[in-house]
Amino acid sequence: MITTDSALLTDLYQLTMLQTYHVERMHETAVFELFIRRLPPERNFLIAAGLEQALDYLENLHFTAKELDWLADCGRFGPDFVAALAAFRFTGTVHALPEGTVFFANEPMLRITAPLSQAQLVESRLINLIHFQTLIASKAARCVLAAPDKLLVDFGMRRAHGAEAALLAARAAWLAGFAGTATVLAGMKFGIPLFGTMAHSLIQAHDREEDAFERFAIAQPGNVVLLLDTYDTEAAAHKLVKLAPRLREYGIAIKGVRIDSGDLAEHARQVRRILDAGDLPQVTLFGSGDLDEHRLRELLADGAPFDGFGIGTRLDASTDAPTLELVYKLQEYAGRPRRKRSEGKATWPGRKQVYRQMTADGAFAGDCLGLEDQPQPGAPLLTKVMERGRRLHPSESLAVIRDRAQAQLAALPVDLRANAPALPYSVDIAPELRELAARLDRESH
Amino acid sequence: MITTDSALLTDLYQLTMLQTYHVERMHETAVFELFIRRLPPERNFLIAAGLEQALDYLENLHFTAKELDWLADCGRFGPDFVAALAAFRFTGTVHALPEGTVFFANEPMLRITAPLSQAQLVESRLINLIHFQTLIASKAARCVLAAPDKLLVDFGMRRAHGAEAALLAARAAWLAGFAGTATVLAGMKFGIPLFGTMAHSLIQAHDREEDAFERFAIAQPGNVVLLLDTYDTEAAAHKLVKLAPRLREYGIAIKGVRIDSGDLAEHARQVRRILDAGDLPQVTLFGSGDLDEHRLRELLADGAPFDGFGIGTRLDASTDAPTLELVYKLQEYAGRPRRKRSEGKATWPGRKQVYRQMTADGAFAGDCLGLEDQPQPGAPLLTKVMERGRRLHPSESLAVIRDRAQAQLAALPVDLRANAPALPYSVDIAPELRELAARLDRESH
Repeated sequence: MITTDSALLTDLYQLTMLQTYHVERMHETAVFELFIRRLPPERNFLIAAGLEQALDYLENLHFTAKELDWLADCGRFGPDFVAALAAFRFTGTVHALPEGTVFFANEPMLRITAPLSQAQLVESRLINLIHFQTLIASKAARCVLAAPDKLLVDFGMRRAHGAEAALLAARAAWLAGFAGTATVLAGMKFGIPLFGTMAHSLIQAHDREEDAFERFAIAQPGNVVLLLDTYDTEAAAHKLVKLAPRLREYGIAIKGVRIDSGDLAEHARQVRRILDAGDLPQVTLFGSGDLDEHRLRELLADGAPFDGFGIGTRLDASTDAPTLELVYKLQEYAGRPRRKRSEGKATWPGRKQVYRQMTADGAFAGDCLGLEDQPQPGAPLLTKVMERGRRLHPSESLAVIRDRAQAQLAALPVDLRANAPALPYSVDIAPELRELAARLDRESH
Repeated sequence: MITTDSALLTDLYQLTMLQTYHVERMHETAVFELFIRRLPPERNFLIAAGLEQALDYLENLHFTAKELDWLADCGRFGPDFVAALAAFRFTGTVHALPEGTVFFANEPMLRITAPLSQAQLVESRLINLIHFQTLIASKAARCVLAAPDKLLVDFGMRRAHGAEAALLAARAAWLAGFAGTATVLAGMKFGIPLFGTMAHSLIQAHDREEDAFERFAIAQPGNVVLLLDTYDTEAAAHKLVKLAPRLREYGIAIKGVRIDSGDLAEHARQVRRILDAGDLPQVTLFGSGDLDEHRLRELLADGAPFDGFGIGTRLDASTDAPTLELVYKLQEYAGRPRRKRSEGKATWPGRKQVYRQMTADGAFAGDCLGLEDQPQPGAPLLTKVMERGRRLHPSESLAVIRDRAQAQLAALPVDLRANAPALPYSVDIAPELRELAARLDRESH
């Protein structure tokens, strides 16, 4: 029903600006950078994600005949301009943080260097794609840090904001360290491991809970995870202990149970005791229901004997911080650095690079935001990934990105890994960059 | 890139349950209802939206050959079950609140009556579609109530959670009373009016702000809305006063200005004075930048002379309440009412209807949640919209839905229209429904 990769998936003002640039013949090279103005108070760091989809978008960008007809008929654009759009392609250069990279406020995640109109049109969709996956990867990473040895599964499709959000949330959570997702299409599209159990409705559709357990196990012998809390969680655990020997006769082992309501920690302890006493120590416990990194730490601190968790709503909508201040700003046009000076929204001009220093034992020691042509101490993080509108390398596999994210999280200073807000990580501004900004401000007066 | 209407856009457990139902031959009629458990504290009412896309989904639902192959190969499902999925279609009945209807907690928005497997599989995507649009329509309605005579435009595409969210947010905001959207594809797909101005980058790409204004006006003579806050808002307004007579010679009138940063109310007052003194009283003022219903009321209370507003991030991600507790629960199977009794998540069983009473002067006087076959005083709100898997009526036009929403908002009790949390609207539970629930609880012990 919904086409997600249309060139018209943009804001109207991009097209009105393009018409101006067309009339004025302003086709010189523009440099835009994508960065976060401020971290939300609930985040100590972010994880870059979404580059793969952004590069797909740039490589395939064009106006279809139907879209051109619609533009010609909508009364806003001249025939000459619409005719020019027929040949529109993205032919620029892209520098980016590799997906899975930890980054901070003011650090460019992406730089576009392209003829002005090309660089301008792509703003809306680039932000839309990269904002969302970065949002979810960053939230997922906090969950992973809160429960590092637990199996975490994305359960959030239903409350994600639409289909694309559901699919890309599964991708973003997996690259940040989740074990998998419940969203089947994400498994098919991205090769992410799938997890799933049963809903309360299956229990309710049977007249007796124990019948539901038995029949589900027989129909799904390879993956028997039973939901205990439809009526009475502990009573259900006892039913399961009774059922297990009969299933064993069929050669079926109960793999796990899920608890989705009530006092999860207390139910988990009770159920663990019942299962252990019933000779089912190998049955794993899986918890779900309004979980996030805060609830995970509470449950684990409370000694709840869970082996894994399904995280839904609060992950897929990043409910405590549902947006990031991700912006895309002109830094240079026609060879001259540019600076926006709006109140509270001033930007650092020029083509920038992020330089990261490491401690001797491999932890992040501080970043420096500098100009690309005036290197600072530390390793540069932005790399060139596209030239003349084409990827320079094959797509990275999600597994490679996931490993990078895990290595980055391991290098993160300890206080930034906590749930609580920490003192901001040090991102210095290189003196050359400060001087450039000051010079531009002077020249404009 | 992303297919949004795949039958695999569902949670894995739906398919594992379907396999159980297939093995058990459980194909009798199930009744599921979709409802909100609790309103978020920030919402006094909700507006139903998303039915059109939900019905599209149900009418077109099927597994493609590629999807069936993938299912057969993934190792979780038997060949017999996968073969049966090839013939899977939705053949059920749907009752629903018409889009644009105001509703409250516990009131079913949608009821599905269908063979168990069909009714089960569709849960994830139905919630995904209806949750999001209802979320956004409800947020947009609060903005409309906060600024009833102002032109409100959806500016949120970039921070919406993905492409589908951006498009459906534009639709949901428009049906709730917004004047239009900036998202071009939403204009093309849904016929929603488009609005757009310019970005700061257009100003920055020119060496002089006044040149940017003039050239934009000449390239876009029919829609000259100029952005004032790139450098100095009041200085920009003075430049515009100087420029206006020259544009008038070309036959071009400046239609409006936009202010996007700083103290919006104070800038608006200053700019209004400068424009009026400069013989430009007809130029309208448009405000943007982190707006929502709270900021709108503040700005208007502060006497800010704005004519319209662009609402982005806080609308398209509904940041103060980014999810709703929308659930889809089995109410009846094989002719017997069913009740989930999980702690804190118990449901009202049976096929329900919402009966709404009105005051003599046409305001909502209170609802009653009752059983469909035991009518209560008031008008029933759920109507049958689909039978045997086909729509009973042509799609409603968005204009009709929008008029309904406006009429409903006008009938809303005054305290529910405020930004502040109000005492909940009265939703009684019919005695027959209480009795049914009590009887089911007794029978299960």
